[in-house]
Amino acid sequence: MGAPKAFFFDIFGTIVDWREGVAREAHSILHPLGHDMIWTAFADAWRGKYQAGMEEIRSGAQPFSKLDVVHARTLEWILADFGLADISAETKHALVLAWHKLDAWPDSTRGIAMLRRQGFVAPVSNGNFSLMAALARRNNFHWDAILGAEFSRDYKPKPDVYLSACAAFDLAPEDCMMVAAHSDDLAAAKACGLQTGFIARPNEKGPGKGESKPKIAVDLAGEDLVDFANKLV
Amino acid sequence: MGAPKAFFFDIFGTIVDWREGVAREAHSILHPLGHDMIWTAFADAWRGKYQAGMEEIRSGAQPFSKLDVVHARTLEWILADFGLADISAETKHALVLAWHKLDAWPDSTRGIAMLRRQGFVAPVSNGNFSLMAALARRNNFHWDAILGAEFSRDYKPKPDVYLSACAAFDLAPEDCMMVAAHSDDLAAAKACGLQTGFIARPNEKGPGKGESKPKIAVDLAGEDLVDFANKLV
Repeated sequence: MGAPKAFFFDIFGTIVDWREGVAREAHSILHPLGHDMIWTAFADAWRGKYQAGMEEIRSGAQPFSKLDVVHARTLEWILADFGLADISAETKHALVLAWHKLDAWPDSTRGIAMLRRQGFVAPVSNGNFSLMAALARRNNFHWDAILGAEFSRDYKPKPDVYLSACAAFDLAPEDCMMVAAHSDDLAAAKACGLQTGFIARPNEKGPGKGESKPKIAVDLAGEDLVDFANKLV
Repeated sequence: MGAPKAFFFDIFGTIVDWREGVAREAHSILHPLGHDMIWTAFADAWRGKYQAGMEEIRSGAQPFSKLDVVHARTLEWILADFGLADISAETKHALVLAWHKLDAWPDSTRGIAMLRRQGFVAPVSNGNFSLMAALARRNNFHWDAILGAEFSRDYKPKPDVYLSACAAFDLAPEDCMMVAAHSDDLAAAKACGLQTGFIARPNEKGPGKGESKPKIAVDLAGEDLVDFANKLV
């Protein structure tokens, strides 16, 4: 395969640390209101409903809505378990916006900038435009475009999310590389004909609970995004 | 009205000089093949078919296709007038890509950077993602996102092109400002509830043939984008 002309990035877990960020924001929103809990357990529980929330849309049971709306819906599913059944609409909205305030892993910003010298760079995430734009501002990512679920109006791992991104750059799938810390995301991209790049994020879901090795054959794997970019050159 | 939280930009004519760029690229592609013509007349003629090309899609006569495809279609309409009826498919494709190689007006890059400190910045152009991304790379624009026709799957001045951009940033229209050198674009945005910013580009269509003053009441007008940004602060 030739050198990729575009790099598409998974964001949650691959580029930013959703677990510590959601836990931190939930603490800062809910603790002053008198709530206490294991904040990472709250983040894990919410993220645990992520696939089920998107599946309502992928299956056609619900019309497309941006991820912020899915997050608002899945938040409802876990509130009672954390003693939050009575929080206000404003508090719920603030919690949804926690996902706009996540910090990059230490190597992400530099790695993206390195890869941008090799080709186009764009998030192909399930996150919506405003969420992606907020994370880019917070972490100084310079994307060529934001693509992914809100552009495709469906959610990964549906093929159109990957293929619409290739088409937006006028590129064949084999000239594009999906970069992710999740083997299932890469398997779906590979089935669409994209090249695959794996980034190890072993602590994404808590210490040792992320993927440290890909479960499928990938075109390139890196210990982090800078290591990955260095291997590519 | 409050300060805009997002600035949406028309691109062709407002941010980049399509006329000199298309003329220069056409010359560099066609002159070595033995063609000669008034190159700006070729650019003017092609641009002259722009609205008719998009109207086929706005009217529903043709399904949505990205602007590169519209440009390829409208190019066919003018080839014979310039003695180009026999050029190859490769040459036609190279001409379509001329629109990816346009230079910014001297103030555009700095003006966009200044406005980016005030709010989100995004092209809301009829140009497609790959075209917008190519112009951004060439001219060092740092957009928060690319929105506009390809995202909306219709062409300005249809309301959804403006409204889908506001919605992508989770903003009400009154919190967004459309920035353009064309009164008709601003009138359409204003009808959707957006704020309006006019940039004078008196030479866009040839010396003195662009708009030096807005034909409608606008919220802010600038002699160029830096002047505009300075007035806004």
